[in-house]
Amino acid sequence: MYSFESDYTTGAHPDILKALSEHNFEPMSGYGTDRFCESAAEKIRKACACPDADVYFLVGGTQTNQVVISTMLHDYEGVIAAHSGHVSVHEAGAIEYSGHKVLELPSHNGKIDPQELKDYIRNYYADSSYEHMVFPGMVYISFPTEYGTLYSKTELKEISDICHESKIPLFIDGARLGYGLMSYANELSLADIAELSDVFYIGGTKVGALCGEAVVFTKKNMPAHFNTMVKQRGAMLAKGRLLGIQFDTLFTDDLYMQISRHAIEMAEKVKEILRDKGYKFFIDSPTNQQFVIIENEKLSSLEKNVRVSIWEKYDENHTVIRIATSWSTDQESLEFLKTAL
Amino acid sequence: MYSFESDYTTGAHPDILKALSEHNFEPMSGYGTDRFCESAAEKIRKACACPDADVYFLVGGTQTNQVVISTMLHDYEGVIAAHSGHVSVHEAGAIEYSGHKVLELPSHNGKIDPQELKDYIRNYYADSSYEHMVFPGMVYISFPTEYGTLYSKTELKEISDICHESKIPLFIDGARLGYGLMSYANELSLADIAELSDVFYIGGTKVGALCGEAVVFTKKNMPAHFNTMVKQRGAMLAKGRLLGIQFDTLFTDDLYMQISRHAIEMAEKVKEILRDKGYKFFIDSPTNQQFVIIENEKLSSLEKNVRVSIWEKYDENHTVIRIATSWSTDQESLEFLKTAL
Amino acid sequence: MYSFESDYTTGAHPDILKALSEHNFEPMSGYGTDRFCESAAEKIRKACACPDADVYFLVGGTQTNQVVISTMLHDYEGVIAAHSGHVSVHEAGAIEYSGHKVLELPSHNGKIDPQELKDYIRNYYADSSYEHMVFPGMVYISFPTEYGTLYSKTELKEISDICHESKIPLFIDGARLGYGLMSYANELSLADIAELSDVFYIGGTKVGALCGEAVVFTKKNMPAHFNTMVKQRGAMLAKGRLLGIQFDTLFTDDLYMQISRHAIEMAEKVKEILRDKGYKFFIDSPTNQQFVIIENEKLSSLEKNVRVSIWEKYDENHTVIRIATSWSTDQESLEFLKTAL
Amino acid sequence: MYSFESDYTTGAHPDILKALSEHNFEPMSGYGTDRFCESAAEKIRKACACPDADVYFLVGGTQTNQVVISTMLHDYEGVIAAHSGHVSVHEAGAIEYSGHKVLELPSHNGKIDPQELKDYIRNYYADSSYEHMVFPGMVYISFPTEYGTLYSKTELKEISDICHESKIPLFIDGARLGYGLMSYANELSLADIAELSDVFYIGGTKVGALCGEAVVFTKKNMPAHFNTMVKQRGAMLAKGRLLGIQFDTLFTDDLYMQISRHAIEMAEKVKEILRDKGYKFFIDSPTNQQFVIIENEKLSSLEKNVRVSIWEKYDENHTVIRIATSWSTDQESLEFLKTAL
Repeated sequence: MYSFESDYTTGAHPDILKALSEHNFEPMSGYGTDRFCESAAEKIRKACACPDADVYFLVGGTQTNQVVISTMLHDYEGVIAAHSGHVSVHEAGAIEYSGHKVLELPSHNGKIDPQELKDYIRNYYADSSYEHMVFPGMVYISFPTEYGTLYSKTELKEISDICHESKIPLFIDGARLGYGLMSYANELSLADIAELSDVFYIGGTKVGALCGEAVVFTKKNMPAHFNTMVKQRGAMLAKGRLLGIQFDTLFTDDLYMQISRHAIEMAEKVKEILRDKGYKFFIDSPTNQQFVIIENEKLSSLEKNVRVSIWEKYDENHTVIRIATSWSTDQESLEFLKTAL
Repeated sequence: MYSFESDYTTGAHPDILKALSEHNFEPMSGYGTDRFCESAAEKIRKACACPDADVYFLVGGTQTNQVVISTMLHDYEGVIAAHSGHVSVHEAGAIEYSGHKVLELPSHNGKIDPQELKDYIRNYYADSSYEHMVFPGMVYISFPTEYGTLYSKTELKEISDICHESKIPLFIDGARLGYGLMSYANELSLADIAELSDVFYIGGTKVGALCGEAVVFTKKNMPAHFNTMVKQRGAMLAKGRLLGIQFDTLFTDDLYMQISRHAIEMAEKVKEILRDKGYKFFIDSPTNQQFVIIENEKLSSLEKNVRVSIWEKYDENHTVIRIATSWSTDQESLEFLKTAL
Repeated sequence: MYSFESDYTTGAHPDILKALSEHNFEPMSGYGTDRFCESAAEKIRKACACPDADVYFLVGGTQTNQVVISTMLHDYEGVIAAHSGHVSVHEAGAIEYSGHKVLELPSHNGKIDPQELKDYIRNYYADSSYEHMVFPGMVYISFPTEYGTLYSKTELKEISDICHESKIPLFIDGARLGYGLMSYANELSLADIAELSDVFYIGGTKVGALCGEAVVFTKKNMPAHFNTMVKQRGAMLAKGRLLGIQFDTLFTDDLYMQISRHAIEMAEKVKEILRDKGYKFFIDSPTNQQFVIIENEKLSSLEKNVRVSIWEKYDENHTVIRIATSWSTDQESLEFLKTAL
Repeated sequence: MYSFESDYTTGAHPDILKALSEHNFEPMSGYGTDRFCESAAEKIRKACACPDADVYFLVGGTQTNQVVISTMLHDYEGVIAAHSGHVSVHEAGAIEYSGHKVLELPSHNGKIDPQELKDYIRNYYADSSYEHMVFPGMVYISFPTEYGTLYSKTELKEISDICHESKIPLFIDGARLGYGLMSYANELSLADIAELSDVFYIGGTKVGALCGEAVVFTKKNMPAHFNTMVKQRGAMLAKGRLLGIQFDTLFTDDLYMQISRHAIEMAEKVKEILRDKGYKFFIDSPTNQQFVIIENEKLSSLEKNVRVSIWEKYDENHTVIRIATSWSTDQESLEFLKTAL
């Protein structure tokens, strides 16, 4: 069985497992105070060209969104996100569970539109009863989005400017950040991401780690007593070393970017195969997730040997599927996919 | 530097790292639906002699307490715990964050007293204004306790009976369960724990895993849509395989019990050293955590080469320290400790 | 100054003040256990033709929505509402504060469309990742809506049927229920409302009371320990008599319906004036709230002597205003409005 | 039937009902923006000798505690209170529902001990794992306490000093404030209360109003966007006039203090009767609540004509009862009580 089901179907990059083994018996203090967490944070600060950043390691994506959003918002605030945003749809109400509303904007292939954002905020304050409404307190975007799309540099700059004029932070969900940065279509560097956002995270789970996301507060804005609030939300890992060693490895010798690049190259090959075979794309995605329309009959036969994600029904005879590559996608799977499609 | 600071200072049992490596490139479905989670659950059901149990893997201890308690309680209920219970003191208010009160009973070396529990529940319902008070909706105990002590079989049976008469579930925090079960003083089997409790968890983080706790619902009482509520609390791991493979390893060939036994044997040797050297124990603990009173001057010299936990001030010249052994404590550390004490 | 600003600008119907005075020194037990709460509940049960209903008195509208929704939903559920619903927009996130998502459907002049509701629920369960999403756990509609519109009997029946097929309760916000029931266009009786919904409330604050809303659980479905949960949400009134006496008065000799009818008659006259003067209506409302488009210049002159609600900007030169009548709107105000418009 | 059951068994002071009637048809804007709320606030600022105070009107006591505490605490903080405090016991977990722990200190006849408070805070920060614990973020005391007792000026000054040194606010629950201030034993003026606390409330519900509590923020410390957070907690009254008119009346011509004084005089007479008849007091209370030990047989006969509160079982043959006077206790009831006791 070959799998293009998602980018989290395999374990971890072998270098990570090697590092975990090497340091296995070295006693380290708990809760993220070990030397690897420190070293990983320092390497991330350098990679972001943001020497003042506070870097904090958490375990998973939904957890990270919940922790960051709920600790940065005031009680009276909500977070603006695309209607298709992960926080809006696929986190089982984790943001609302923490007491905050997700204020939805239209989704344009997964992205919010800067002008619509601007209008939303202006209209909010223009409403005479705005005190009876949830204040816009943060903007959440994902890069790449849930549909694999990317913001251009101009778009991100505009959104960032609107946020700063409105004095609300911009939070970038980078669960698949590497796959965005390494896309051939991408215009943004990691340093740009750090500069234009107020807080973002570098996804590990989907980019070669067993688990783990590195949150980067870029503007000396980590909430006071963040540690205690992480504990309170059940999100603190006793053996913080597990996250420290993994991110230290990923940010040594540019490993994170290299393996992300590999996934993009594999995705480009998948696109080529699909194009050659005449498939119609559902969305034009420049990253590791490809959304394509397939005949139901064809899909049935494909699924005998290849796992893909069923995205949604397209029409009576067609289905939208997602084909995802990752750091671990190999040439053999690709060859098989080619024959099976 | 030698460390007796805690039972979570080293990595994972080598068998676990080996298994992670072996299956690293096998694609598995996410969110706990992989074959290792299934196999681990089955092995745990057998070890518990509880074929109907629902087994669910979570990442850490505070998270597990928060998820289990908040999904099992009704809004109007709180959880009864010892004043010294982990949920009462050292979880930064994680239970209250989920909306529930911790109803505290006196702590007797970390344990609650069955009679005091019975009285508490009876007095609650005898109060004419009980509708204005938080209902006792669950009993939480830890085994071993935060002070390393154990409930006898009679005590646990009494507490279990009170809970069932009162129709409230008994939840056992087993963050260090192995060290309790393997204690020379222990009277309870894993099957007893499963039988007498309604839900409990088998700690992995402190007993040889990189992370992970296995929650066992023993009475066909896993809350409906538990999966969704786990996700909502930010507690679902995308790569559930990380937990599945670890627990599958720990419950193969009795590994969990063997490494727990090792920690107990090491703890007994520590006790012997301490006794021989004339140290006074703060608490009589039969498990892997030893609490002992030490002169401040002696402590300073000890700390040059050995890490221990500072528990609390005893008097002007003495301090209570905790010396913890674990699955990874080796003979060399022990020898060194002997000379250094 | 004449006021058509809202339906809660004046005090209470004189009969209510009289009753409060008459019984002022009679000692009554607290927290809703007094004889007036009992008597009012009984009268409401009769008026609803629902002898088994549980009737509970709360203080205000947002509080009632928050209490009802948060006590009836499971943790993993959200409430479906129109995008323009009071719970979606104008309650400062009270539902999310209680941990639940508002699942928004398009608003058709304030109403949800039965077919869109049906599709929403079906699509939810058809989604392969529905376990990662918020379950639809209740449908919230307002009658009349925030735009003064009404559901037809057929529409309400359809929505009710969908809810019951989906096994989720239908909750009707009746903050202005009297004005809906007494509308010339209305097809629904109070008994119909009780029959077709699972829980609804009869608004007092906007229909002649100083404060107070009467929640009616129509299907023996009041949540267990509701009293305790009301207390826990800070919503229990010590002097429940204040609510009991008011609702007892309102449901004596059909007072509630009579004063509601008066407001409707006044609203019809307002509509006539507006039509005669050639104003364009923003929405065709058959109840006590009229939404009309006015020239900004005209509005400025109007506001010198008459208070109205500014609803929203229509275009550069026009504004949408709301003119509300109530139980206390008198002929003199109406005459003045006629000359001033 | 005569009632000494509580201080909230009758309606409102006649002056309040009169004022409500007088202004009944005057249209006023909603949500606390009417002229009476403004005027009442100004009168309260004068009575407190605190011209900069922010005054906010809420409906009931538990609601006020929940709103004030949850809007003033940070997520990582809890509120310190006596074990017997209203927030600790009789609010059905309203504080925990808002996400915060109540950190309990021993109760000394309802009061906390300044030295124990000091030690608690010092020990908290001295604990090496304090980051894993709930921060003490506020001190809550009640004046008078739930047992009718009062803090001396020295005690209150000490507690206030400790709070300010620790940079945490002192909150005084004044549900029965008038009965404390007017006690013969009281050493504190309303101005003292305002000066020594950071926020407190003046109880209306138990001191002559139909409902209502006036929160006074004394140090320019009302939380930003308090209005929105009040709405979000379901605590905002549409017809704020109901609270404004009542407090305006209570703070006109010293009415609040006069009627409080009356209750105290009645309580002193009750004490005299009890002493004369040889009853043993359970607590020595200088305010309107008297706690006395009564034979069960005597109690049965008493209850035929007089309602009192059953406090707790004293021994097999005796019960502790509470006899409460209020602004409305009259001479006739007193005479009857004398004969019945």
